[in-house]
Amino acid sequence: MTRIALYPGSFDPVTRGHEDLIQRSLALADTVVVAVAVNAAKTPLFSVEERTALLTETLNGEPRVEVHSFEGLLADFARQVGATMVVRGLRAVSDFEYEFQMALMNRQLNHDLETVFLVPDLNLTFVSSSLVREVARFGADVTSFVHPAVARALAAKYAR
Amino acid sequence: MTRIALYPGSFDPVTRGHEDLIQRSLALADTVVVAVAVNAAKTPLFSVEERTALLTETLNGEPRVEVHSFEGLLADFARQVGATMVVRGLRAVSDFEYEFQMALMNRQLNHDLETVFLVPDLNLTFVSSSLVREVARFGADVTSFVHPAVARALAAKYAR
Amino acid sequence: MTRIALYPGSFDPVTRGHEDLIQRSLALADTVVVAVAVNAAKTPLFSVEERTALLTETLNGEPRVEVHSFEGLLADFARQVGATMVVRGLRAVSDFEYEFQMALMNRQLNHDLETVFLVPDLNLTFVSSSLVREVARFGADVTSFVHPAVARALAAKYAR
Amino acid sequence: MTRIALYPGSFDPVTRGHEDLIQRSLALADTVVVAVAVNAAKTPLFSVEERTALLTETLNGEPRVEVHSFEGLLADFARQVGATMVVRGLRAVSDFEYEFQMALMNRQLNHDLETVFLVPDLNLTFVSSSLVREVARFGADVTSFVHPAVARALAAKYAR
Amino acid sequence: MTRIALYPGSFDPVTRGHEDLIQRSLALADTVVVAVAVNAAKTPLFSVEERTALLTETLNGEPRVEVHSFEGLLADFARQVGATMVVRGLRAVSDFEYEFQMALMNRQLNHDLETVFLVPDLNLTFVSSSLVREVARFGADVTSFVHPAVARALAAKYAR
Amino acid sequence: MTRIALYPGSFDPVTRGHEDLIQRSLALADTVVVAVAVNAAKTPLFSVEERTALLTETLNGEPRVEVHSFEGLLADFARQVGATMVVRGLRAVSDFEYEFQMALMNRQLNHDLETVFLVPDLNLTFVSSSLVREVARFGADVTSFVHPAVARALAAKYAR
Repeated sequence: MTRIALYPGSFDPVTRGHEDLIQRSLALADTVVVAVAVNAAKTPLFSVEERTALLTETLNGEPRVEVHSFEGLLADFARQVGATMVVRGLRAVSDFEYEFQMALMNRQLNHDLETVFLVPDLNLTFVSSSLVREVARFGADVTSFVHPAVARALAAKYAR
Repeated sequence: MTRIALYPGSFDPVTRGHEDLIQRSLALADTVVVAVAVNAAKTPLFSVEERTALLTETLNGEPRVEVHSFEGLLADFARQVGATMVVRGLRAVSDFEYEFQMALMNRQLNHDLETVFLVPDLNLTFVSSSLVREVARFGADVTSFVHPAVARALAAKYAR
Repeated sequence: MTRIALYPGSFDPVTRGHEDLIQRSLALADTVVVAVAVNAAKTPLFSVEERTALLTETLNGEPRVEVHSFEGLLADFARQVGATMVVRGLRAVSDFEYEFQMALMNRQLNHDLETVFLVPDLNLTFVSSSLVREVARFGADVTSFVHPAVARALAAKYAR
Repeated sequence: MTRIALYPGSFDPVTRGHEDLIQRSLALADTVVVAVAVNAAKTPLFSVEERTALLTETLNGEPRVEVHSFEGLLADFARQVGATMVVRGLRAVSDFEYEFQMALMNRQLNHDLETVFLVPDLNLTFVSSSLVREVARFGADVTSFVHPAVARALAAKYAR
Repeated sequence: MTRIALYPGSFDPVTRGHEDLIQRSLALADTVVVAVAVNAAKTPLFSVEERTALLTETLNGEPRVEVHSFEGLLADFARQVGATMVVRGLRAVSDFEYEFQMALMNRQLNHDLETVFLVPDLNLTFVSSSLVREVARFGADVTSFVHPAVARALAAKYAR
Repeated sequence: MTRIALYPGSFDPVTRGHEDLIQRSLALADTVVVAVAVNAAKTPLFSVEERTALLTETLNGEPRVEVHSFEGLLADFARQVGATMVVRGLRAVSDFEYEFQMALMNRQLNHDLETVFLVPDLNLTFVSSSLVREVARFGADVTSFVHPAVARALAAKYAR
């Protein structure tokens, strides 16, 4: 049986924390589908195309990872790509509660989909896309939090 | 002594979780006043009139429940309707903390008002108005989370 | 309908925090049954008889409160005394989780029993029986945390 | 690659919640090793032999599950049986924190061991071995929480 | 060695809770720099100038406190004013997690900056700027939560 | 003004996490008094004398740190040594709640004593004395968690 894991998120932009989760997911599944959420309600810093491109550049041709964007319900998208597992990182208690509620809703909508929580690398637990954007906005160095390509994209974005 | 309980919320829209809480409140009080908050700051999906109408249809003439809308401080509205109890559902730790802070503030503003927390039906703990809207927006079936009248109203809203 | 509330605990010994909860319960029910748990597994400082006597002295003849001891399941004892409500104080998140689990188990064992959580007086949130024992053990003044009769009993206990 | 998952615990006794977790683990791994911890410090109700026998009877010959007991560090036992995954259930925030700390320690002791957290069936979130023992001790019906063989074993244990 | 503590926040407006924290900080440091954050993303009720003026009036010439506004990263501003300590109040678990993440990020950006958490006066734990604005908006009395000058400013703001 | 900070604990045994907290405390105070609690109720692995000796060896003559043992209330011991600050590390939410309650009780018992919470080094957040004892008990390497002298003492203790 081929196991396909789905790793959904905004990835605005992808951080070293996301990269770490993707590596860990590869130990659990044969293929990892990184799913970039198109959320009409939020105004991201990077467009879906930019976020997908940065992910692709960061992942650098890892053969067992695919990058997709999706709109709509995660439970439906999982069915579409044949995923039986959703992977999520747990950093904090508040993460946990929201994720718990989402996992229960997704189970209700798709009984064959199991949500799996992983613990990120300890040194990356405080790295989030929003904190990285905040730090980059004021010109501080973010190269320990993101891939060099992402650091360049952030610099270009805030230089405009 | 007639005991009047106040159950405040946005009810945008009313869910099976809210219905469950109202039923539980009826065991604690003689009358339950469901209070729909008019919040100028937020943009709800349903207008106050629609939310009140859906509550009324859902509650289906239960004689000990009244549906009202209110603007301003809950502590003042409680005094107006003679309520001595505010009922709130607890689902998660993050709920708890915000609710705790509100309960202390309401006690400060109205010493005769006791906040009472209830545990919802386990199978409804993950049902929230915002998740229901999200799921309905993408056309998924929400009839296990809301009353049929609410499911129809959601379908009509998102079909526009 | 006469509403009977059950307020269970170890009361080893009763604190000002417990007294506050009992007063608040009296606003929700016609009769409050304070139920002292006989727990064979723990070694309390005060015997069940002493704990019951200190509660009775502290409550000072309040006509709507009864003090009982019980052994066995709370869900069964509630049926025995005709209680439809269990009252519990919420001080902290960790309280909340254990209490939540107990409330769900009690509901499973007795469907007519609703657990109701109240917020104690803010100035008593840090007062617990175990902290009071710890403080009294070293001879510090505990009169702001417990009734004078309890303070005397603690002093006598630790003087031995 | 054959994936082996380790599911450690006290299983004193195995509950429907544990059974649910084992079923979920089978979707993630080819073999699930249920590892009964021999803990010299605690005094369990059932001996290691009894706990192992009850697990075996409950699991009823499921070919992809093995039941073992172990003493010592989980990180070492994982190496011994070739497991690359530890499975744990998450019920509450307090669970989460302890489990998080253990996961980080186990990663430090065995870099190839990934801890994976799963969400149990909602209707079993409040079922724990300790609550089941407490309920059975007073003669209440536990057949909705445990396998019939476990219910019989509990009845026999407390009848002595 | 002169110890300089930084106490950052929005102070929209300053509350009795903030005043309490500033007093406590004075026991830890020789000088306390109150740093009003200029946040382009949020729309505060009071302008930076108004917030700074209300702080100054509230603090009433306390010689060891300075009020500044700042834009950009806190870690940089700390370096600028020579602060080695950031002071934050802890009220709730959700506070704690966000603050923890910020403290780790600030340590990464400025290794000489230690974040120090203090417990506010118990009677002020439920007082936040946002709750005070909410209460004042509906004309309720806020004089137990803020300095008289702030109460007047709120009344004037909402009378417009 | 000479600032004296108190850092209380069981230190059974001292870990790298404790050492880190002591270093951080030295940035806040002129003198740090490490206070080893003598707790009659618990049975520690190391005696008070052993725990004190291991702390002294670990701290290696740092001139601004003193190691003492104490029995009784922390609030009283703080007065005795002239401390105005208690330093505590925060690792997790459950820590936070207990610590919060203790801080409020200590403030009640000694108004001049401020409890100050610090964030430990991220790589040491999962290191606790109890986990270190557990790991050492089974002969695993603990040198990344404790000082070499402590590792030797643990090995000697468990070899008996």
